[in-house]
Amino acid sequence: MRVNQQRLRSDIESNAEFGAIPTGEGRGRTVLTGSEADRRAREFFCERLRDAGLSIYIDEVGNIAGRWVPESADPDAAPVATGSHLDSVPEGGIFDGPLGVYAGLESIRAMQDAGVEPVRPVEVVNFTEEEGQRFGGGLIGSAVAVGEMDSDEALSIEDTDGIPLGDALADIGYRGEDRIDAAEWDSWIELHIEQSERLEDANVPAGVVTSIVGLSRCSVEITGEADHAGSTLMGDRSDALAAASEFVLDVEQATNERTERSETAVGTVGKLNVSPNAPNVISGKVTLTVDIRDVDYDSIEYIIEEAQASLDRIEDERPVETTLEHPWDRQPVEMSDRCRDALHDAGADANLETLDLHSGAGHDTMHVAEVTDAALLFAPSRDGISHNPREWTDWEDCAEATQVLAGALAKLATE
Amino acid sequence: MRVNQQRLRSDIESNAEFGAIPTGEGRGRTVLTGSEADRRAREFFCERLRDAGLSIYIDEVGNIAGRWVPESADPDAAPVATGSHLDSVPEGGIFDGPLGVYAGLESIRAMQDAGVEPVRPVEVVNFTEEEGQRFGGGLIGSAVAVGEMDSDEALSIEDTDGIPLGDALADIGYRGEDRIDAAEWDSWIELHIEQSERLEDANVPAGVVTSIVGLSRCSVEITGEADHAGSTLMGDRSDALAAASEFVLDVEQATNERTERSETAVGTVGKLNVSPNAPNVISGKVTLTVDIRDVDYDSIEYIIEEAQASLDRIEDERPVETTLEHPWDRQPVEMSDRCRDALHDAGADANLETLDLHSGAGHDTMHVAEVTDAALLFAPSRDGISHNPREWTDWEDCAEATQVLAGALAKLATE
Repeated sequence: MRVNQQRLRSDIESNAEFGAIPTGEGRGRTVLTGSEADRRAREFFCERLRDAGLSIYIDEVGNIAGRWVPESADPDAAPVATGSHLDSVPEGGIFDGPLGVYAGLESIRAMQDAGVEPVRPVEVVNFTEEEGQRFGGGLIGSAVAVGEMDSDEALSIEDTDGIPLGDALADIGYRGEDRIDAAEWDSWIELHIEQSERLEDANVPAGVVTSIVGLSRCSVEITGEADHAGSTLMGDRSDALAAASEFVLDVEQATNERTERSETAVGTVGKLNVSPNAPNVISGKVTLTVDIRDVDYDSIEYIIEEAQASLDRIEDERPVETTLEHPWDRQPVEMSDRCRDALHDAGADANLETLDLHSGAGHDTMHVAEVTDAALLFAPSRDGISHNPREWTDWEDCAEATQVLAGALAKLATE
Repeated sequence: MRVNQQRLRSDIESNAEFGAIPTGEGRGRTVLTGSEADRRAREFFCERLRDAGLSIYIDEVGNIAGRWVPESADPDAAPVATGSHLDSVPEGGIFDGPLGVYAGLESIRAMQDAGVEPVRPVEVVNFTEEEGQRFGGGLIGSAVAVGEMDSDEALSIEDTDGIPLGDALADIGYRGEDRIDAAEWDSWIELHIEQSERLEDANVPAGVVTSIVGLSRCSVEITGEADHAGSTLMGDRSDALAAASEFVLDVEQATNERTERSETAVGTVGKLNVSPNAPNVISGKVTLTVDIRDVDYDSIEYIIEEAQASLDRIEDERPVETTLEHPWDRQPVEMSDRCRDALHDAGADANLETLDLHSGAGHDTMHVAEVTDAALLFAPSRDGISHNPREWTDWEDCAEATQVLAGALAKLATE
């Protein structure tokens, strides 16, 4: 069984046209959930599913599943599933998400072409709103598919204009009526770009994830006093941005310290807003988020404690008030040995090296792993860049990782 | 000669109705140049000028002067002038600007009532677009009145919708044809709220400004690499916000050090924008402005040098690139001894204490001082708050500062 690199590339490049943006370097796209670009990407995906003879299911939150029920299979057997997402961050790249969706479809086509005879159906899935750029915090579609979130709750999540997800999906014709329940799947494998440099550095085409990091988000607010930048002497100031700057550096330092015990620990202040944000006004308020991850949950607890200690110290030393809220976190998630073994075996069969590594990002697989055996496969990312038009994976690398995916899905489906 | 507190308060409160905004606390208004609120504020001012028997002049950029030529005066003598501005920042207070305009008018009325016999005309002026909230960088009207800016240049400044100042003034009927030339004035005094707490702390009703600070603005850009916050290990990051945080603290520290030599030195990063500003993306770019002021220009040079040194060090220590642009600055401006003496003498005559202090903000007086003898008088600001509906000056304080202004104008006009 051989996957077809040209066919895979053609699908990904066609998909890259939807929401394409002009870029100086690389290829970028903006595909926000419920946008016209999203509608076109979904429409093209459904066409390609039909072309491959798959039946299409669309659930209430717009998750799309294409199901292949070969004659060899028991149609009532628990399916093997694969897939990823078609949405993107604003000005994102063309591989983050679509590679996994179209590699899943290509895997099914490769099995069809090679006459593989699965004993169970095989499904390829596009999950809604993985990135969380328009509605909520991301991973919405998979949260509903595993039952972690109620579909009514998901449908009522509003964007910044007050438009609920349900209306946005109805507008583009992708608020469906089918039911997609990940708990009914025999197993799941998602192929995704690595978004890091370990595979590139090791010159290995496929990474088999051992565990997905735990993740905490904290919201911090630092309140000072907005005053005139000219008439308020240095000693009379309560400068929220200067206080926030100390905090940003404290989070970075605490995380760096933690990497001596757990090198996978990361802590990031990626979003920070200053108010009133005028050149001649001392900032009166700063709001920011801290994103903390590690495969070792102790690291997350340590960094949150250090972040709170930093705010306490800053309140002692500066006339500001601070709050830290910790709205949610997730424990680290181990991948299934059965699915991981299938991936390593498929690599060996295809004479492609595989490497064990952790995942710093959540991905829909984090949800799916709550309800069935799941694995996550990485393809190399050039320079580790993603969420950026310069995100890139060579077509040869796409095809080799897809070959490993197809082999593993075939193993799981024929067992 | 006594100024009439009720008459002054009535004018300021009537003016506060134009562009009034609902507020939880205090009294706010939004009077942007060329808006309906601006039109109504100007119309009311012109009515009050007529009521006091003054002749009205309106120049091309909408500056309005009301001239009193008493029988005792040589109509061709160089006038003594006073005034301020009627525009506001969005959601600003009711005193910043209007106090100086209506205190100027009240001073003339007080002289009229008391039978003061000036030997030269007295003018009260409303300068256009002091705040620079809709058109350009502020102080537009006074820049034209002193010849620092050509009126054609000023009229062609566009707002963010592409509407030129000239059209906006024509729309509200205040693009005039008269000429207002500050170089022809014998002298100038502006009364303004202090926007700081020195008068309040000293319990003194009138502050006589010794000099207005010099001011530099720097634009800084720090470029890192936008990467995934989960999959990019700490050692592989180029985090623009962490680098910017070091810079913000370095500017603060350099300024604090400088205050040991010049306590009036201030340095502020008030505006800072993060890109892409997402919780799960390491920031790829930060742009920010630095606002640096002091009565001693050496402080400004020192702080800019330290800011550049900070960026150089950050570039050495982190994989980021930085740029610092220094688009403009202004030298400190000394106030006229003759006008300051008139203010101190007027305070002594009225048995009101006066205090010498510097001004951290520019004000239109900074321009006028380039072409004639000028002074700036401060009234107390509660808690130093301004550009905010909580900006407040007690009516008694308004009247006492106006009493000092009126006395000084009478001295200058009768000499």
